[in-house]
Amino acid sequence: MALVCVEDYEKEALRSIPKNALDYYRSGAGNEFSLSLNVEAFKRWRILPRFLRDVGGVNTACNVLGCRLSTPIGVAPTAMQRMAHDDGEIGNALSAGKIGGIFILSTLSTTPLEEVAAAAPNTIKWFQLYIYKDRSLTESMVRRAEKAGYKAIVLTIDAPYFGARRADARNKFKLPPHLGLLNFQGDQANSVKSMEGSSGINEYVTRQFDPAITWTDVSWLVKFTKLPVVVKGVLTREDALLARNCGCKGIIVSNHGARQLDSVPASIEVLPTIVDAVGNDMTIMLDGGVRQGTDVFKALALGAKAVFMGRPLVWGLAVNGQKGAEHVLELVQRDLELTMKLSGCVNISDITQEYVAHESQFSKL
Amino acid sequence: MALVCVEDYEKEALRSIPKNALDYYRSGAGNEFSLSLNVEAFKRWRILPRFLRDVGGVNTACNVLGCRLSTPIGVAPTAMQRMAHDDGEIGNALSAGKIGGIFILSTLSTTPLEEVAAAAPNTIKWFQLYIYKDRSLTESMVRRAEKAGYKAIVLTIDAPYFGARRADARNKFKLPPHLGLLNFQGDQANSVKSMEGSSGINEYVTRQFDPAITWTDVSWLVKFTKLPVVVKGVLTREDALLARNCGCKGIIVSNHGARQLDSVPASIEVLPTIVDAVGNDMTIMLDGGVRQGTDVFKALALGAKAVFMGRPLVWGLAVNGQKGAEHVLELVQRDLELTMKLSGCVNISDITQEYVAHESQFSKL
Amino acid sequence: MALVCVEDYEKEALRSIPKNALDYYRSGAGNEFSLSLNVEAFKRWRILPRFLRDVGGVNTACNVLGCRLSTPIGVAPTAMQRMAHDDGEIGNALSAGKIGGIFILSTLSTTPLEEVAAAAPNTIKWFQLYIYKDRSLTESMVRRAEKAGYKAIVLTIDAPYFGARRADARNKFKLPPHLGLLNFQGDQANSVKSMEGSSGINEYVTRQFDPAITWTDVSWLVKFTKLPVVVKGVLTREDALLARNCGCKGIIVSNHGARQLDSVPASIEVLPTIVDAVGNDMTIMLDGGVRQGTDVFKALALGAKAVFMGRPLVWGLAVNGQKGAEHVLELVQRDLELTMKLSGCVNISDITQEYVAHESQFSKL
Amino acid sequence: MALVCVEDYEKEALRSIPKNALDYYRSGAGNEFSLSLNVEAFKRWRILPRFLRDVGGVNTACNVLGCRLSTPIGVAPTAMQRMAHDDGEIGNALSAGKIGGIFILSTLSTTPLEEVAAAAPNTIKWFQLYIYKDRSLTESMVRRAEKAGYKAIVLTIDAPYFGARRADARNKFKLPPHLGLLNFQGDQANSVKSMEGSSGINEYVTRQFDPAITWTDVSWLVKFTKLPVVVKGVLTREDALLARNCGCKGIIVSNHGARQLDSVPASIEVLPTIVDAVGNDMTIMLDGGVRQGTDVFKALALGAKAVFMGRPLVWGLAVNGQKGAEHVLELVQRDLELTMKLSGCVNISDITQEYVAHESQFSKL
Ligand SMILES: Cc1cc2nc3c(=O)[nH]c(=O)nc-3n(C[C@H](O)[C@H](O)[C@H](O)COP(=O)(O)O)c2cc1C
Ligand SMILES: Cc1cc2nc3c(=O)[nH]c(=O)nc-3n(C[C@H](O)[C@H](O)[C@H](O)COP(=O)(O)O)c2cc1C
Ligand SMILES: Cc1cc2nc3c(=O)[nH]c(=O)nc-3n(C[C@H](O)[C@H](O)[C@H](O)COP(=O)(O)O)c2cc1C
Ligand SMILES: Cc1cc2nc3c(=O)[nH]c(=O)nc-3n(C[C@H](O)[C@H](O)[C@H](O)COP(=O)(O)O)c2cc1C
Repeated sequence: MALVCVEDYEKEALRSIPKNALDYYRSGAGNEFSLSLNVEAFKRWRILPRFLRDVGGVNTACNVLGCRLSTPIGVAPTAMQRMAHDDGEIGNALSAGKIGGIFILSTLSTTPLEEVAAAAPNTIKWFQLYIYKDRSLTESMVRRAEKAGYKAIVLTIDAPYFGARRADARNKFKLPPHLGLLNFQGDQANSVKSMEGSSGINEYVTRQFDPAITWTDVSWLVKFTKLPVVVKGVLTREDALLARNCGCKGIIVSNHGARQLDSVPASIEVLPTIVDAVGNDMTIMLDGGVRQGTDVFKALALGAKAVFMGRPLVWGLAVNGQKGAEHVLELVQRDLELTMKLSGCVNISDITQEYVAHESQFSKL
Repeated sequence: MALVCVEDYEKEALRSIPKNALDYYRSGAGNEFSLSLNVEAFKRWRILPRFLRDVGGVNTACNVLGCRLSTPIGVAPTAMQRMAHDDGEIGNALSAGKIGGIFILSTLSTTPLEEVAAAAPNTIKWFQLYIYKDRSLTESMVRRAEKAGYKAIVLTIDAPYFGARRADARNKFKLPPHLGLLNFQGDQANSVKSMEGSSGINEYVTRQFDPAITWTDVSWLVKFTKLPVVVKGVLTREDALLARNCGCKGIIVSNHGARQLDSVPASIEVLPTIVDAVGNDMTIMLDGGVRQGTDVFKALALGAKAVFMGRPLVWGLAVNGQKGAEHVLELVQRDLELTMKLSGCVNISDITQEYVAHESQFSKL
Repeated sequence: MALVCVEDYEKEALRSIPKNALDYYRSGAGNEFSLSLNVEAFKRWRILPRFLRDVGGVNTACNVLGCRLSTPIGVAPTAMQRMAHDDGEIGNALSAGKIGGIFILSTLSTTPLEEVAAAAPNTIKWFQLYIYKDRSLTESMVRRAEKAGYKAIVLTIDAPYFGARRADARNKFKLPPHLGLLNFQGDQANSVKSMEGSSGINEYVTRQFDPAITWTDVSWLVKFTKLPVVVKGVLTREDALLARNCGCKGIIVSNHGARQLDSVPASIEVLPTIVDAVGNDMTIMLDGGVRQGTDVFKALALGAKAVFMGRPLVWGLAVNGQKGAEHVLELVQRDLELTMKLSGCVNISDITQEYVAHESQFSKL
Repeated sequence: MALVCVEDYEKEALRSIPKNALDYYRSGAGNEFSLSLNVEAFKRWRILPRFLRDVGGVNTACNVLGCRLSTPIGVAPTAMQRMAHDDGEIGNALSAGKIGGIFILSTLSTTPLEEVAAAAPNTIKWFQLYIYKDRSLTESMVRRAEKAGYKAIVLTIDAPYFGARRADARNKFKLPPHLGLLNFQGDQANSVKSMEGSSGINEYVTRQFDPAITWTDVSWLVKFTKLPVVVKGVLTREDALLARNCGCKGIIVSNHGARQLDSVPASIEVLPTIVDAVGNDMTIMLDGGVRQGTDVFKALALGAKAVFMGRPLVWGLAVNGQKGAEHVLELVQRDLELTMKLSGCVNISDITQEYVAHESQFSKL
C-alpha cells in the first residue's frame, strides 16, 4: 500500500521492527494519557483560512537562531536510532538536509557525533546535551560538538531521571548488545576506558545522569560555549523566564514526547503562555505530537519559530531507512506548503495567531 | 431494506459503486477531522420548539437572490457526477427541479452546461466557476452560462490547489477514461483543440487552475457579468467583508465538504459570525454536513437563506440514478416540513435564532 | 438472571417481544440524538449528599395537584400498551396503584378508559388528551374521563403531527389487527359508527389529529372541564408562560420521549429555566429518560414535583405483564428511597437545589 | 507477565478470585457512573512540572495528625479482606508498614483488631468505626482500638444504609461461611453471645447499623475518646464545617469508592472546595480512584495531606497475598517519588497548587 502520511508509516513500522524496539519508541509514561493528548490537543485548534491571496509562490524559508532554513520542520533528538534501521542517525541527518530543516542529534546516539557531522556536512545540525555528574565529560561533549560544526546546544532539562514507561518495564528493555551509545566511546573520560563493551558504557551513562543540576549549571554552560544554548522541556512560563534570565537563546516547548511524566500538558497547550511570557526575547520552538502540515501551521500561528518531530522519523527509518525518513519529512513539508496555500499564507512570517481559533470559541453564540 | 434517510443512501452507495469512485466522493482532506466535524457540529445546537401555533399550512417557499423557490434546499456543485451514475448532472438537475430548489452545476461537470440546461429547463440553475489562468476561457464559460439561462455565478474561492485526500492518493484516483470534463470540450479555447481525448482535457483543466487570483479578479468578474456573483468557500468575517466590498451578492459559507484543508471549522460553526458581519448586506447560504431537516432548520435559524447538499445527492445517484437523487431531496424536504410543523414555524421567515440554542447554554445552572 | 434495574428489563424485553413492536416502543425521532440525550443529560448533574441527618424514617409521600401520593413517581401515557402484553393499560394502572403513584392513561389506549378505571379504582388516574378536529369528540372524551374518576386532563401539545421514527418507517409499522384504539370504539361520534373493525378507527383517529389548534383551544378546554388541566410537552419558558396564562394548573416538561423532533433538548436540560419562569404559579413535572432513583431525585431537586416514566413500564409489561411493570416501579421507588437516605433527605420537600450541582461547576479551580 | 502498575494487578485479580468476591470488591453503586468518574476526574488535572531543582534527595516523609510517616500513601478500610486472600487484613497492615504509610482497619474486618495490631506492631494503624444502635457496643469497639494501639478513629458517615450494587444483587452476594466479621466475635455485647456461628454475627452487625445518627453522636464520640476523630465520607463544604465544629481533627474526602450513591462527585472534584472551607483548621485527606503516583501528587497539590487506596490493595492481596499488596504500595510509592523528581518537588510540603492546572484552563486562548 502507498504510504501517504505519517500514520501510514507508523502502522507499517509496527510490522517492520521487533516489539521490544517498537515499544521503546512508541510508548509514553504512565498510562499514556499525555501521549495521546499531544496529538489530540492539536485537534482543538481550528485553522481559519483566508482566500484569494495569490498563493502561487508559497515559501517556507525562515531564520531560526541564526540558521537559514528552507523549512521550520526539523528532527527532534531521539536516542538510539540505529535500533530502527542501520541508517540510524546519519540517515535522519541526511533526510533533514534534503528538506533544509534542522537535525538535532541526541547525546544518546548510536553513531558518534563526529561521524554524523562528517556524513551529513550540508545539514544544519544541533547537538542535544545532558549535563553529567562529570562536568568535564559534559564540557568535552560540548567542545566536540562545537568542533564538529553543530550550530547550537540543546540542553534537555526534563530528564533528571528516566520516565516510567510500562511497556519497557514489562519488556525489561535493554539496548541490543551490538549497538552502543557511541558518543561516549570516543570520549577521553577515564572511567569509560576501564569498561568493556558497549553495555558497560550504557551503565556508565545512566550513572552519569545528574538529578542535582540547577539553573546555575545552565549559566555555566551558557558561559563556556560560544554556541547558542536552547533549553528543551520547558512547560511553564516560570521556567521560561528562568531560561531567559540564564542567557539561553531558545526554548523547545516539549514534554519529551510524553515519555517522562504522564498527565503533563500537551506542548501545544502550554505554547501560548510561554510565547506570551518570553516570545519577544527568545526563539520559541515546539515538539510533541506534530504529524502533519496543519500541526506545524498551528504551532507557528501560536508563536513557535520551528517544530520538531521525534517518532515519525523513527517510523520512517524503520520502514525504509534513510529513504523512509526522507519521505516522512517530505510528506509533512508538502502538507505544510499546501496548508499555507489553502489558508492564504505565502511566507512563514504570514502565519500569525489570526489564522487559528480554539474550538471553545465556537461554543458561544 | 427501505431507504428512509440520507444515511441509508450512504450505506447503500457503499455497495453500489467501485471503491475508487466512492473514496473520491466520500473522503475529506487530511485525517478527516473536519469531515466528521461538519456533521457533528450540527448536533451541538438544539432546536427549541414552540407549540400550538396552527401549523396546518407549513410552507417552505422563499426568495433567494431573486429566485422564487419552493424550498431553501439545493444541490451543491460536485464534480463528475456521471461517475456515480449515468444520469449524472442532468439527473440531479431534474431532481432539484422536482422539489423546486436550486441546482448548482460544477465547472468540472461530466455533462456540458448547455445540455444540462436543455434537459432541465424548469430547474433554477446556478453555475459554479473557477477563475482560470486563461481569463478568456473564464469569461467564455460565464457567457455560456448566462446564455444557457443560469441565474447566478458561484465563484469557488477555496481551491487555488486541490486538497490532499489520502484515499485518493492511495488509490491514485483518476477520472475514468470514458468520462470527460465536458464543459471544456465545447469551448473555443485554442489549447483544448490541440489535445486528444478527455484525459488531455483534464490535464489542461488542472493546469488552468490559477493560484494567483485575488479579490481584484472577483471585481473583474462582478463587473463583466450581469448575473449576481456568489462566492463559495468563505469561512471568516474578514473574507465576508471583502466579498461584500467587491460587489458580490451572496456567500456560501462552506469548507468545500472538508475536502480542501483539514481542521478548518465546520461551516455551521462559523455561520453566526459571518451573518453577524454581512448578513444585512448579502444573502448568506451554507453547505457542509447537511443531512436532515433539522440541519436545514438550524442553518436557517442561524441566518442562512438556503443550504446545499453535496455528497447526499451523489449517494442518491449512485443508488438509483435520478430517482435516487430525487428521493434524497424529498426525504430532506419532508423532514424540513415536519421540523417546521413540530417547532411551530409556518413559513421560512418564521425560523429565527430564538428557535435554537447551543448546547453550551445548558451547562450552566 | 435476576432483573435488578430498568436496564435489565430493557435488555430482557428485547427478547420478549417482536421487532416490530419493540422498535415502535424503543425508537426516537430522526437519528435519535435526543433519545440518548434524555438519559445522558441526567449524568451531567451530580448529587451532593449530606450525612448524619437521621434518615431512619424516609418518606416519599407528596401532594401533586391536589392528589395525595405515596411517591412522586408515575406512569407516563404511552399508546397501545397491550401490544407489549395483554395486561396492557390495566396492568400498568394497577402497578401505579401499588406504589401509590399517578397513572396517566393515553388517549391512544388499547383498553377503554372506563375499563381501566373500573379495574384499578384505587389508583390515582389522569387522562391524556389530544384536541381533535371534531371538538365534540374531544369534549365527549373529557366528559367520559371526568365521569370515570380521572383526576386531571393531560393535554399533549407536542404532537400536531407524528414524529418521524426511522425504524417504524422501515418496518412500515401498524397496530396489529387484533388490537384497537378502544377509547374511540365506545364513542358516540357518528363518523366512527360507519367504519368497520379497529383499523378503520385507527385511520379515523389519525385523520382527527388537528395541527391547527392554538392556545385558544387550551383556554376552551380549561373553561369547560372542572378538572385541572396539565399541558405536556413544554420545552421553553415562553410556552410555559402561555400555559400559565391560559389557566393551566400544571406542566409536564417533556420531549415526548424524543419521539417527535430530534435534536430538541433533554427535558432535564430545560427544566431549570421553566421552573424559574412559572415554578411559583404552577405544578411543574417532568418525563423523559428517568431510569433510576437518582434521576428522580435530580428532577425534584431542580424543581419538578413529580416525574413519569414511559418506556420502562413497557419493558416491565413486555417481560412479565402487570408483575413486571410493578417490579419496575418498585425498583425505581426503592432506589429513590435509598437515594434520599444516602443524601440526607427525609421528606420529598427536603430535596432542593442545594443537593445537586452541574458537572460544569467542577471545571473551575 | 510482569505486573508493573495497579491496572496490571486489577486485570490479574480478575483471574485469581471467584466472580462473587471479585464483583463485591470491584463494583460501585447504580450504573457505576461515579465509579469510573473517580478515576477519570484525575485525568482532568494536568501536572505543571518545574525543572532544574536538584531533585537528588526526594523525600516523601510527612506528619499526618501527629503520626510521622514515610509516605502520605495509605490503605483505606475495606471490609472482609480475607475473602481476597488468607493474608487478609494482616497482610495489608504489614504492607503499609513496609512503606511507612497508614493502615486503616475496617470495622467489618475478617480479622479481630487485636490480632492485626499484634501482627503488625510497627505499622501506624487507624481504626474505622460505624456508630451502632447499641452505643455501648460502639464505645467498647473504640476502647479496644485505643488499647490495641490504634492512633485515630475514622468514623465513616456515608453509610447509614448499604449502597445498591447491582452485581451483588444479581449474585445474591453473601460473606462465605468460613469467614466472620471477627471484630464482633470478641465483643462483650450480650446479644452476640447468644448467636451461633459467624453468619449470625453478620446479621447482627447489619441490624446494628443506625440510620438515625446525627452530628450529636459525633460530638459524643469526640468527647469520650482520647484519639483524634477523622470523619470519612464528606463531600460538601457544609458537612466539612459541621465536622470541624464537632471537634473532629480530620476529614477523608471520599465517596466510599462510589459504592454508596451513584452520580455523586468524584472525591478529587470536591477536594478543592473542602480544603477551601476548613483546610486551615483540619487535616484533609482523600480516597477514591487513586491508582498511580500522579494521582497522589494531584491530591496533595489540591490540599490533601494523605491519600488512601481501597481496591488496589484488594487486587494485590488477591494476586499474591501480602507480597502482592506490598508490591502494589511500592509501585505507587515509587511512582510518587518519580513524579516529584520529574516535577521539581523535593519534599511533600513543596507540592502546592501551582503544580497543577485543570484542563479547562487550556480551553481559553
Ligand atoms: C524513542 C525516543 C527517544 C528519545 N530520546 C531523546 C533523547 O535522547 N534526548 C531528548 O532530549 N529527547 C528525546 N526524546 C524526545 C524527543 O526529542 C521529542 O521531545 C519527542 O519525541 C517529540 O514528540 P513526538 O515523538 O510526538 O514527535 C526521545 C523521544 C523518543 C520517542
Ligand atoms: C465529490 C465532490 C466533488 C466536489 N466538487 C466540487 C466542485 O467541483 N466545485 C465546488 O465548488 N465544490 C465542489 N465540492 C464541494 C461541494 O460543493 C460542497 O461544498 C460540499 O460537498 C458540501 O458538503 P457535503 O458533501 O457534506 O454536503 C465537491 C464535493 C464533493 C463531495
Ligand atoms: C411507545 C410510546 C408511546 C407513547 N405514546 C404517547 C401518547 O399516546 N401520548 C402522549 O402524550 N405521550 C406518549 N408518549 C410519550 C410518553 O408519554 C413520555 O413522554 C415518554 O415516554 C417519556 O420518556 P421515557 O420513555 O424516556 O420515559 C409515548 C412514548 C412511547 C415510548
Ligand atoms: C470492597 C470494599 C469494601 C469497603 N469497605 C469499607 C468499610 O468497611 N468501611 C469503610 O469506611 N469504607 C469501606 N470501603 C470504602 C473504602 O474505604 C474507600 O473509600 C474506597 O475503596 C476508596 O476508593 P478506591 O477503591 O477507588 O481506592 C470499601 C471499599 C471497597 C472497594
